Amino acid sequence: MTVYWQAEAPSALARQFKSVRSLSEALAHPLSDADATAQSMDDASPAKWHLAHITWFFETFVLRDHVAGHIPYDPAFAFLFNSYYEAEGARHARPSRGLLTRPSLAQIFAYRRHVDAALTQAMPNLRSEALALITLGLHHEQQHQELLLTDILHLFAQNPLDPAVWDAPSALPAPMPEPIKWVAGHEGVVEIGHNGEDFAFDCEGPRHSTILTPHALANRPVTNGEWLEFMGDGGYADSRHWLSDGWAWVQREGIVAPLYWRKDEQGWSRFGHDGRRPVNPAAPVAHISLYEADAYASWAGARLPTEPEWESAAQALDPHSGNQLDTARCPRPRACEQSDGLAQMFGDVWEWTGSAYRPYPGFRTAEGAVGEYNGKFMSGQFVLKGGSCATPRGHMRPSYRNFFYPHQRWQFTGVRLAKDL
Amino acid sequence: MTVYWQAEAPSALARQFKSVRSLSEALAHPLSDADATAQSMDDASPAKWHLAHITWFFETFVLRDHVAGHIPYDPAFAFLFNSYYEAEGARHARPSRGLLTRPSLAQIFAYRRHVDAALTQAMPNLRSEALALITLGLHHEQQHQELLLTDILHLFAQNPLDPAVWDAPSALPAPMPEPIKWVAGHEGVVEIGHNGEDFAFDCEGPRHSTILTPHALANRPVTNGEWLEFMGDGGYADSRHWLSDGWAWVQREGIVAPLYWRKDEQGWSRFGHDGRRPVNPAAPVAHISLYEADAYASWAGARLPTEPEWESAAQALDPHSGNQLDTARCPRPRACEQSDGLAQMFGDVWEWTGSAYRPYPGFRTAEGAVGEYNGKFMSGQFVLKGGSCATPRGHMRPSYRNFFYPHQRWQFTGVRLAKDL
Amino acid sequence: MTVYWQAEAPSALARQFKSVRSLSEALAHPLSDADATAQSMDDASPAKWHLAHITWFFETFVLRDHVAGHIPYDPAFAFLFNSYYEAEGARHARPSRGLLTRPSLAQIFAYRRHVDAALTQAMPNLRSEALALITLGLHHEQQHQELLLTDILHLFAQNPLDPAVWDAPSALPAPMPEPIKWVAGHEGVVEIGHNGEDFAFDCEGPRHSTILTPHALANRPVTNGEWLEFMGDGGYADSRHWLSDGWAWVQREGIVAPLYWRKDEQGWSRFGHDGRRPVNPAAPVAHISLYEADAYASWAGARLPTEPEWESAAQALDPHSGNQLDTARCPRPRACEQSDGLAQMFGDVWEWTGSAYRPYPGFRTAEGAVGEYNGKFMSGQFVLKGGSCATPRGHMRPSYRNFFYPHQRWQFTGVRLAKDL
Amino acid sequence: MTVYWQAEAPSALARQFKSVRSLSEALAHPLSDADATAQSMDDASPAKWHLAHITWFFETFVLRDHVAGHIPYDPAFAFLFNSYYEAEGARHARPSRGLLTRPSLAQIFAYRRHVDAALTQAMPNLRSEALALITLGLHHEQQHQELLLTDILHLFAQNPLDPAVWDAPSALPAPMPEPIKWVAGHEGVVEIGHNGEDFAFDCEGPRHSTILTPHALANRPVTNGEWLEFMGDGGYADSRHWLSDGWAWVQREGIVAPLYWRKDEQGWSRFGHDGRRPVNPAAPVAHISLYEADAYASWAGARLPTEPEWESAAQALDPHSGNQLDTARCPRPRACEQSDGLAQMFGDVWEWTGSAYRPYPGFRTAEGAVGEYNGKFMSGQFVLKGGSCATPRGHMRPSYRNFFYPHQRWQFTGVRLAKDL
Repeated sequence: MTVYWQAEAPSALARQFKSVRSLSEALAHPLSDADATAQSMDDASPAKWHLAHITWFFETFVLRDHVAGHIPYDPAFAFLFNSYYEAEGARHARPSRGLLTRPSLAQIFAYRRHVDAALTQAMPNLRSEALALITLGLHHEQQHQELLLTDILHLFAQNPLDPAVWDAPSALPAPMPEPIKWVAGHEGVVEIGHNGEDFAFDCEGPRHSTILTPHALANRPVTNGEWLEFMGDGGYADSRHWLSDGWAWVQREGIVAPLYWRKDEQGWSRFGHDGRRPVNPAAPVAHISLYEADAYASWAGARLPTEPEWESAAQALDPHSGNQLDTARCPRPRACEQSDGLAQMFGDVWEWTGSAYRPYPGFRTAEGAVGEYNGKFMSGQFVLKGGSCATPRGHMRPSYRNFFYPHQRWQFTGVRLAKDL
Repeated sequence: MTVYWQAEAPSALARQFKSVRSLSEALAHPLSDADATAQSMDDASPAKWHLAHITWFFETFVLRDHVAGHIPYDPAFAFLFNSYYEAEGARHARPSRGLLTRPSLAQIFAYRRHVDAALTQAMPNLRSEALALITLGLHHEQQHQELLLTDILHLFAQNPLDPAVWDAPSALPAPMPEPIKWVAGHEGVVEIGHNGEDFAFDCEGPRHSTILTPHALANRPVTNGEWLEFMGDGGYADSRHWLSDGWAWVQREGIVAPLYWRKDEQGWSRFGHDGRRPVNPAAPVAHISLYEADAYASWAGARLPTEPEWESAAQALDPHSGNQLDTARCPRPRACEQSDGLAQMFGDVWEWTGSAYRPYPGFRTAEGAVGEYNGKFMSGQFVLKGGSCATPRGHMRPSYRNFFYPHQRWQFTGVRLAKDL
Repeated sequence: MTVYWQAEAPSALARQFKSVRSLSEALAHPLSDADATAQSMDDASPAKWHLAHITWFFETFVLRDHVAGHIPYDPAFAFLFNSYYEAEGARHARPSRGLLTRPSLAQIFAYRRHVDAALTQAMPNLRSEALALITLGLHHEQQHQELLLTDILHLFAQNPLDPAVWDAPSALPAPMPEPIKWVAGHEGVVEIGHNGEDFAFDCEGPRHSTILTPHALANRPVTNGEWLEFMGDGGYADSRHWLSDGWAWVQREGIVAPLYWRKDEQGWSRFGHDGRRPVNPAAPVAHISLYEADAYASWAGARLPTEPEWESAAQALDPHSGNQLDTARCPRPRACEQSDGLAQMFGDVWEWTGSAYRPYPGFRTAEGAVGEYNGKFMSGQFVLKGGSCATPRGHMRPSYRNFFYPHQRWQFTGVRLAKDL
Repeated sequence: MTVYWQAEAPSALARQFKSVRSLSEALAHPLSDADATAQSMDDASPAKWHLAHITWFFETFVLRDHVAGHIPYDPAFAFLFNSYYEAEGARHARPSRGLLTRPSLAQIFAYRRHVDAALTQAMPNLRSEALALITLGLHHEQQHQELLLTDILHLFAQNPLDPAVWDAPSALPAPMPEPIKWVAGHEGVVEIGHNGEDFAFDCEGPRHSTILTPHALANRPVTNGEWLEFMGDGGYADSRHWLSDGWAWVQREGIVAPLYWRKDEQGWSRFGHDGRRPVNPAAPVAHISLYEADAYASWAGARLPTEPEWESAAQALDPHSGNQLDTARCPRPRACEQSDGLAQMFGDVWEWTGSAYRPYPGFRTAEGAVGEYNGKFMSGQFVLKGGSCATPRGHMRPSYRNFFYPHQRWQFTGVRLAKDL
């Protein structure tokens, strides 16, 4: 595997290990055994499965491969908790994950403790190759933390009782953001992609040059209030604004609003981890598909940013800033951030780009199972940038490439406009 | 509603009420919250849902309709736990029952206790119409007890870990049954259908005359051992024995054995509430579809009994006898019952008949929601008779008409041969 | 094969052969090569396929099996034109019949002429077993004549241009029929089923006794005018009248009227072989499913007749009478037939019965491919009686058992009410 | 609409009009009415529909919009023969095109003659905007000529009789091509996209700069012989080489070879317009999906070219050269073209690139229906370059962007390898 990073010093890594692993368990804390078992669609996984899978990842690629004498905790777990690594053999069918009522959530927590203890004990003696795999495993676990949150949200949203995952105070009334301002982007030859220091996933490199034509980005994401204007103007019913596949999707699925929105006598509400609440017009719109983002941009006389445009603009900003996962309220308005510059690039919502998820020049997949991490998904998907309110703080980078199919919208996905100058 | 029965005396009814309600909870005892929540196919329901639905039935048709001042326990429950009563309004989509992780199993038990207390308190003052509905509700609950058992079996069978619902000693080695003997049936005009005393579901009547041509029934159901011969002779691959719809089903679904059977190096095993165990050749074959039953009969040079043939023969037998639900081991050999007469007519396995489930002469559906109980299902299904090892003892009658679609086989369904004389 | 008939005297058979074969070609006369090739749904077959299949039947079961030295006309035809005879080997997938643009219609006519000549030449020397197969083949061809008409109607109905198969004068204005009168049926033990003389399909026997309870049949089928009342009263939207499977079908498919009906500013029209025309309120309703027939009967406070009720009443009537195929206008009012007795029992529309299509006591399927003719279809279907305006005159008998699935309605299917007395 | 071209001088345009229109009719010449009517899958259209649709395009966008007093030939044709132009209103459902047995092929030819005459008469007086639309219409018709050929091939391939569209002499035995040689491509900043002179579709521009990293292209496409090696090495069964979506597709569809390949005792054959013939190992492999092309490249230790790599290399070559549509034999070996340079870039097979079909910087869709031509298809599809043996000669350009979904393969699609240097 092309290693783009140096493993952390063991003691720092041990602290990071403890911290990341604890967060997963904290996120699962409000869940019952049943909550953690159910699977609400093929795209989602049960919380219990996430908790076990990320543990299996450490057990397999570190303990099994790098710790002599390791005995598998349960030989059946490789079959149950492998996600998509063909090189690791047969596995349980993904759409049937929700039928695994056994092992129980308590048994999965016991599995976690066992692997954590073994790994903590082994860590001081591991070679750098194994330490690098632990670092990879932690970033992998952070990805599943976000998925755990969005999958559990999708599950709870299917329940007619509208149960909240956790109670949270209603968002403070926020001043409506100012109208969008346009911020000119870089022009000509720019460099994007990971620069080779610190951790990054393989698909973020190699760093390379590309050419940008004159363009501008909106200073902030599109808000719910603006989205309601689009809806009010018949945006979901006007084929002129839609990609052909998107138009077919809108009609086939009867889409008339973002996911989790519902209209009743009181107007539009949305469902979140804090239950069902009125749509806040000041907050960034979330849970929209690429098709919707693209149609909105067309309606607004603009377009989606390309990945290079977004990334070259983001390189000057602090990826630890913004509304990311440590406050646990998502997504919420960031009214205080209005400025002449680019606001909310990191956190709040993943921003759809107009770039297909394809390899960078010179990209090669690694040998072995870990090589299946990213490369094999490079068809049919679009790149999203910047992380969301459900992304663990510290996980984000300008070069980070998230990817989903254009119809998917159960993540905290939103849109920032761009235009040619 | 045409009432075919007199309600029990209140005190006897109260005892019966307590007994039936307790059994449901005993059956759910081995289940975790997650076990009780998951739904493994559209045809099945979660155990939790069964426990709530049968309680909703009492709350709605007795407390709501016949007890002044009753306040609904939870207004949302009518939407969640109505099964198919169109007259009771909109309801949660059946295939989504497994996503209701809330209310929890503990909350459903609390619901049960609340309704039980209210009903017990009200019972002494209820009029006979309401008491009749309680009697109906208890028979209804017994039906769901069997479904709870077969649905949970189907769920556990999807788990690659093959978890047992409960531990049970392996079946004692049983002597292989003797070859089938043929028992001549009644001939000429016979009467079938419920005779109007004691409880019966509306579809069991009116009692009426029909004509039987000369025929015989096998003295016992087909065994697993005999089924293995059918399989060994290529029975599943020989179109000549199959109904056209059955042949399409076999090919489309890749059917090669009864449900829950699996072959490995040790030979054929089957999955049951006691986990995965070797197929016992002396036990009656279970978990076969009407298509399989009919194909087997064709291969054996016989045919299925008709409902009148079966029922007229069963009228002389004790419906409380046989391997029914109070031993909780299903299905098991009944070697001691070999005799010159008909054995195992009640219990062990539901026996497919060759009769379509259609109304008897003079049948009329009742007014209102309760009228939806049976009549509206009278197309496309076949009648099964005699109950199974999962049928609560006391629930069975010769006139009892169970019905399933010809491809369904997750119940304890088997086959007894018949032939023309 | 249990032979229920004596073959005709050869010269009469030869005349009948010529007559039946000619009618098929006359029916195909208005069709272009493309018309005769297309297949509008899986249930239907192209006209060209019908013309070839019925010829293949004669070639295979008579010429191949009973004429020494017969050389197959084209070895590929067995694969292309076998319908469902598993014993005759692999065959072209039914849903792909419409892609066989070759051989052309002209080539199929040439095939017909070749087989007709060979059969005519061979007939004088054939033994009675072979002559019986010719008789069977002619009745088989008559069945396909009706299917050819209904399949081509379904195809033309998919064309937004509403092309007529043939021009026909508009039906004469007919006086509205009188309100329904009830005609008491036989009661007690009656005999039904074919009596063993003349030709009948195997499923029509054995003749046997059955018991009828007191009942009456309507003197005529339900009319379009009456059906419009049912529609106007919300019949398609009232779950109380529907079988459960029927209600699911109505909702899933969005059914609001009989097949081929359409509403525009001028009101309801229907599509027929004569193109699109206003619905004639005096004509019998056609193109309804069993589900619709059953729901209508429930709405009308009546029920469907059983097969024995219908057949015992029809045994006194002339099956050659009525509006059957030689006038080629279907279905049309039979205003002149109002009488105190049963009118329109034969012809006009196939009448759904409430009887499942299951074997009569003592029925056994024949050995070999011809044994697949009827028996293997005996699950999930309902019996229809009496023939329709598209049934060739001479083909009908009181014991004739047609069968379709309860949702199917592209045949000329209607309904006559019955009730208990 | 951004017009990238000047309309031809009218007289040249008239000659071109006649020439293109004639070719369509010549291509349809071997087809019967039925051949021209059937539709073998949703992605394909009937030949008759193609012939009518391209005529409707001229009638609508030229005669209706630019010729005063034009009377529609048939008001129903807009509904029947609009392809996907939402702005032109409702239209016949695409999957039902094969049920339009009327109008007949002869009637469509009459429609063509009528529009041709009207257009020829009007042409001398048309303004440049209308002449530009005629030019667009001719390029549009050429696209449908290729689709007509590939759609009819797909239809005939469904026929078990393996009918040939036209007889053609077997391909001459060709010497096997030499092993692949690698040709270094341009490096650094290059320009791609249409340069604004002559006709081009809107999606081919604007011309713009991009950066190429060091790379090489194979001097010729992959051959059938090489593909057989991939198959022999288990390429279709080795998940490591496949994109995740591709692997799911291979397993779901049971893909083991290119489309139209079949194996019997004589080995592998393929189906083409000349019927079924042995696979020629010297010919370029055709009828492969992007998934297959990508898996082959992975197996070969190479990758797909990007669109900019391919186009910058092709700019030096003659797009009128190569095996394109005027010989009507497809695809065939081009053994004589072995050279040090790039062979077979134009013609033979469309070459899959690794580039998603997305807009070029500055691309804007046109207003109105014609604006739906390309832009709305820019999600989920990949770019193919260079044309095929079924592309009309004269239609091709280096900047030409064809696009299909990654699983589609009924076009003449092949692959040329690339690699990083």
